Amino acid sequence: MKDKTFLMIPGPTPVPESVLLDMAKHPVGHRSSEFSSILKEVYADLKDVFQTKNDVFVLTASGTGAMEAALSNLVNEGDNVLSLVIGNFGERWAKIAESLGANVERMAVEFGQAIDGNALKERLDADVDKKIKIVTLTHNETATGVTNDVKNLVALIKEHGAVSVVDGVTSIAALNCPMDEWGIDVLVSGSQKGFMIPPGLAFIAVSDKAYSVYEQCKHPSFYFNWGAYRKSVRDASTPYTPAVNLFVALHTALKIMKNEGLSNIHARHKKLATALRAAIKAIGLELFVKDESIASYAITAVLPPAGVSVPDIRATLKKDYDIVVANGQNALKDKIFRMGTLGFVCERDLLAAIASLEASLYKLGHKFELGSGVKAAIEHLV
Amino acid sequence: MKDKTFLMIPGPTPVPESVLLDMAKHPVGHRSSEFSSILKEVYADLKDVFQTKNDVFVLTASGTGAMEAALSNLVNEGDNVLSLVIGNFGERWAKIAESLGANVERMAVEFGQAIDGNALKERLDADVDKKIKIVTLTHNETATGVTNDVKNLVALIKEHGAVSVVDGVTSIAALNCPMDEWGIDVLVSGSQKGFMIPPGLAFIAVSDKAYSVYEQCKHPSFYFNWGAYRKSVRDASTPYTPAVNLFVALHTALKIMKNEGLSNIHARHKKLATALRAAIKAIGLELFVKDESIASYAITAVLPPAGVSVPDIRATLKKDYDIVVANGQNALKDKIFRMGTLGFVCERDLLAAIASLEASLYKLGHKFELGSGVKAAIEHLV
Repeated sequence: MKDKTFLMIPGPTPVPESVLLDMAKHPVGHRSSEFSSILKEVYADLKDVFQTKNDVFVLTASGTGAMEAALSNLVNEGDNVLSLVIGNFGERWAKIAESLGANVERMAVEFGQAIDGNALKERLDADVDKKIKIVTLTHNETATGVTNDVKNLVALIKEHGAVSVVDGVTSIAALNCPMDEWGIDVLVSGSQKGFMIPPGLAFIAVSDKAYSVYEQCKHPSFYFNWGAYRKSVRDASTPYTPAVNLFVALHTALKIMKNEGLSNIHARHKKLATALRAAIKAIGLELFVKDESIASYAITAVLPPAGVSVPDIRATLKKDYDIVVANGQNALKDKIFRMGTLGFVCERDLLAAIASLEASLYKLGHKFELGSGVKAAIEHLV
Repeated sequence: MKDKTFLMIPGPTPVPESVLLDMAKHPVGHRSSEFSSILKEVYADLKDVFQTKNDVFVLTASGTGAMEAALSNLVNEGDNVLSLVIGNFGERWAKIAESLGANVERMAVEFGQAIDGNALKERLDADVDKKIKIVTLTHNETATGVTNDVKNLVALIKEHGAVSVVDGVTSIAALNCPMDEWGIDVLVSGSQKGFMIPPGLAFIAVSDKAYSVYEQCKHPSFYFNWGAYRKSVRDASTPYTPAVNLFVALHTALKIMKNEGLSNIHARHKKLATALRAAIKAIGLELFVKDESIASYAITAVLPPAGVSVPDIRATLKKDYDIVVANGQNALKDKIFRMGTLGFVCERDLLAAIASLEASLYKLGHKFELGSGVKAAIEHLV
């Protein structure tokens, strides 16, 4: 139905109407005092969301731009980088590091698994000469719906002495990720996820330790240069003409988030994702991530039932119920579908999605007790 | 007055209401067929605006991001780059090239002047060993309101054999800049200027010759990688999650532009800027660019009259008439003010601006014949 589409993909995610309308205002000048006041509040509110005293730089870019902004200010040619890979986005860190001329070593696990802390400890302990300069990792792997134990992994990296570079694109403002408490050196995120605004802005927060490594970087990016961004944040400004309308949207969204409260936001994500998983199992479908202790609160990957294809499930949900869910990526294409419960999603949205998934599977011939998914979800939610 | 502000700065520029409203729609999935259809039309329409058969890559970034995207796919450490500098934005090319490890030679002129074709010819002729790999230049220098004779300069660069890299940020879709006819190798622009949408997207078109140089680039940027963008354009896709709402806005704006017609758009910009210059002179103010044959059709820099300060002119225009004009940058701060007639600006807007400038100057004590600016503009427009 026209104008009814509801996105349950891992980004872009639904956007509150007040955010959309503020975004639609005529652009303001990016060097005006009006915009500077907006920036001042945005920069302060972002520190709360990142749970950090570090400056949070806001880039006009995709999340991948923020990933490049992380490594291109740290890596010199020939540096040793250890990339912890649990899915496509972990692999992206490795590729970016390679594009900068780093020697990249991958510690990879089967997709659907998380990084084993003991294995990481063993590898870092073996690096007695401290050759590993940077370790990249993913908090919430969007490709599989697995959440790494970042707290533990970063503690190990800190003990070794390397710089920890964490992808929080689908985790910040959805999952708890206290940058300072956990000692993360570089943390990046994107606007179209937990921040409830459209894509186009990306975030990067940098510890003093990481900043001192940047100061030894021979050819840091010009557009993403940390020095320029740090100066601008402190001047309530931006280095170049930013996506002003998206900043205005972000300003509004951050107020909404402040009003809900960060711990309530995290609790909501946890509640919705665990209710969804209960429903998925109740209607006889299998979760891609078997070990629920590492299952994401932002994105749930599901295997189709025997005899029903992922494309059919996605097409029925879209055509008959106006709900968009994501396919698997690369090797996982048509093997799983992924449902986002990320950002501006309420319990009604979740119930609608589960009921629509039931209706779609019923149409496609899957045998199960109709209503069992909704029942399981309600029991979990209430 | 609330909601009355009118931007006459060199970007962001005013945005049509239909563009703002389309931008405010809920984001669509960036891997959906709906978005792919939008991309297909956008990519085709952009070729018309750039007057090229080359693919036009659309980046989620500021104009400076597109500048980095140009050089970071071409420059290897130690390459020789000649930067033609007529203002701040010409200097930015040089800084980006230096950040990539290039040996940069600057050919600079006094601000307010354009590059002399004979001087460039002499320099390039002297490079008998063809050591200069890349020449960077600016079509329309936003900092001064000077337009370089890109047609002639690029012809000289072509004859030498270097790769020409042109900043068209404030020129494309405002001034005539036929990429293929003039033989430009790399041409960049931004969304918040002639394209009539808010900032956040940037464009880069690349000739086959430039692409073959990219193929020899040792460490091209990952986020801005030409190979990834070329593949995506041809698949009606984008490499990473793009600013989907800005793409939707661009889609609408390009239809409006098509409807007006590119040559009509160019003629409108020429007419408005020359009418503005006639008005400025009629009210006894001095143009920063004395030689009107190199004066920009997008941005006009003006000296304040004796005894009246630039900050007072800007403040009065803003407070009493809701018009924002730009100050000079760096050394030109408070020495000039700059009025944009760029993008979504009509004759009524220009007349309002001239009349408001007259009223402001009158309040500030400048002696001149009231109405003379409007008279000169009308005589020019009608």
